[in-house]
Amino acid sequence: MSSQTAILDAHYMARALELARKGLYSTHPNPRVGCVIVNQGEVVGEGWHVRAGEPHAEVHALRQAGERARGACAYVTLEPCSHHGRTPPCAEALVQAGVARVVAAMQDPNPQVAGRGLRRLAEAGVEVASGVLEAEARALNPGFLKRMEHGVPFVRAKLAMSLDGRTAMASGESQWITGAAARGAVQRLRARSSLVLTSAQSVLADNARMTVRGAELGLDPDTTALALSRTPQRVLIDGRLRLPLDAPFFQAGPALVVTALAADPRYAAAGHELLVLPGNDGQVDLPALLRLLAERGANEILLEAGAGLVGAFAQLGLIDEYQLFVAGTFLGSQARPLLDWPLERMADAPRLKIIEMRAVGDDWRVIAIPTSAPGV
Amino acid sequence: MSSQTAILDAHYMARALELARKGLYSTHPNPRVGCVIVNQGEVVGEGWHVRAGEPHAEVHALRQAGERARGACAYVTLEPCSHHGRTPPCAEALVQAGVARVVAAMQDPNPQVAGRGLRRLAEAGVEVASGVLEAEARALNPGFLKRMEHGVPFVRAKLAMSLDGRTAMASGESQWITGAAARGAVQRLRARSSLVLTSAQSVLADNARMTVRGAELGLDPDTTALALSRTPQRVLIDGRLRLPLDAPFFQAGPALVVTALAADPRYAAAGHELLVLPGNDGQVDLPALLRLLAERGANEILLEAGAGLVGAFAQLGLIDEYQLFVAGTFLGSQARPLLDWPLERMADAPRLKIIEMRAVGDDWRVIAIPTSAPGV
Repeated sequence: MSSQTAILDAHYMARALELARKGLYSTHPNPRVGCVIVNQGEVVGEGWHVRAGEPHAEVHALRQAGERARGACAYVTLEPCSHHGRTPPCAEALVQAGVARVVAAMQDPNPQVAGRGLRRLAEAGVEVASGVLEAEARALNPGFLKRMEHGVPFVRAKLAMSLDGRTAMASGESQWITGAAARGAVQRLRARSSLVLTSAQSVLADNARMTVRGAELGLDPDTTALALSRTPQRVLIDGRLRLPLDAPFFQAGPALVVTALAADPRYAAAGHELLVLPGNDGQVDLPALLRLLAERGANEILLEAGAGLVGAFAQLGLIDEYQLFVAGTFLGSQARPLLDWPLERMADAPRLKIIEMRAVGDDWRVIAIPTSAPGV
Repeated sequence: MSSQTAILDAHYMARALELARKGLYSTHPNPRVGCVIVNQGEVVGEGWHVRAGEPHAEVHALRQAGERARGACAYVTLEPCSHHGRTPPCAEALVQAGVARVVAAMQDPNPQVAGRGLRRLAEAGVEVASGVLEAEARALNPGFLKRMEHGVPFVRAKLAMSLDGRTAMASGESQWITGAAARGAVQRLRARSSLVLTSAQSVLADNARMTVRGAELGLDPDTTALALSRTPQRVLIDGRLRLPLDAPFFQAGPALVVTALAADPRYAAAGHELLVLPGNDGQVDLPALLRLLAERGANEILLEAGAGLVGAFAQLGLIDEYQLFVAGTFLGSQARPLLDWPLERMADAPRLKIIEMRAVGDDWRVIAIPTSAPGV
């Protein structure tokens, strides 16, 4: 491959990734995918996947290209599918359209595809390439990849803290310590997630509903409408079923409640699902819950809870990313800790890579990724 | 003044500030000052103040300009002095050299100058202006300005913490949790300070010497040599005189020890100064100490201590800037707090403005400025 081809491939793939990003808030449980079709240096078709059950990115782009897809090169941010799902296989459609070359950013980790899409194309005489801007393509679908590759969702923990790492006063006095811009950022994190996971303790403390509110997203009207058409499921971990059914959280719509107690028909009667998932310690079995949520198609999970539940997830090594919203204040040495995680020795302290610190209005956001498993 | 004059004034003043910055590590107790002399669009002289007792910036620039100073414009980052100190007044020198115009970034807050330098120039027929890039000029000398305007030094607190705001394990197990780049940054903070203030507890815990080590500064050889020629005084707050005289801290050179106990001749015998400064509570009187250090010429103080002493300074509202070095780790909910500062109510929580978060090697640095006085 000439270096000019490599430059052009990266250029068109970057555009395909840009298109894919339009599906940030709506494709789940499917991945975000974009496609660009180029014929003799001219972009003749563009498409992106909007919602599960609707056409894939390739189909949109092929429709736009029409006859001009013949002999063209298609850039796709994910290997075209080869299986009959809710839509016919895209590899087939590309062959039918007479596309001469297909460049994928990455292979599809979906075991139903896994290289078969590209193979099918190659067998039909289409030139294929893969691995162009692969890191960017992977970063776009952390949840879909985690689910396909590991059978669990990507868990993003959101916490709001003071500069000295505290979340509330010892008395429990707690108010949103960060400002409107940070709240908007959290709303967007919710909207991009397949589900929002919280605890009875958090919801009780804040009277929270854990919904996505369009006005607070800070997005353009089209994207806002799209996000609101696919809002995240709300999942409540309530080991002892303490949150009353008339709480605002339950009034805001159907929820999934996970408990360590026995089944209770009142939840279904009120329109909610109750899941009984006790672990050995009498608490909810969190690893089993994540596997089950992945089986149901959850890609990205936003964990919005207090020091107790987030600490429990952290100690089990179940968190993939922390987003810490930091307010310019000190809450002092008696205030509540960021995570309930008792550690005795420095050697046991988990390591994280801080990948970003950025101002969000008057507050700052820190993104950090665990690099060592707890206890390892 | 025409807008072109304003643009040119800002341009040359920016250069003068750049020159002034060369004195970052060496001018104390004097301010960092730079000077540029421009004659008919040509820079004919440049200078900066190197060390107290040596010529001021204007003198260096005038020497370089020679005869070409006549009719020229001099840009100075601080109003030229009008008093006889260790060097003759610069306002006089500028008049003698026949400079036609003097532009100062700011008036000198030194009560011995305070506008008198510019007035003297104006009376001699020199055109004068002030306030060009004033904010930048002020930012260069926070300590000198604080001391001149408020009679106390500028106190910068340096703390190293985990992402969850902890400094050490509950057991006291403590090791430097941040990396080499952060250590270099701390070395530069020490080097620019008039003095480094620490506590017996910190020094005992870490066997610290609190010295400036040239190899760790990460500066070019000339600047390193300059920094090492004016290292900060080391001040130890040791209320109960617990640190033994054979500790590495005392072996590293003469120090100032501040206690709440009675005088003890052994310190002077060992080459150290002992200052008895008890407050009403039996602890060292910190506000009185700061006033005394300012009287002795301390501009910037680097406070490097543990949660106890930094917490005490913080509660008294004596800290002007926090530099938090954040390592990518969690030390957990039992670990030691950032500051010993018990707060009951959110209304009492101090507000800070986070002005910078930036990667320093594998760690990150957060700079925050208190915006509300404690208890206000």
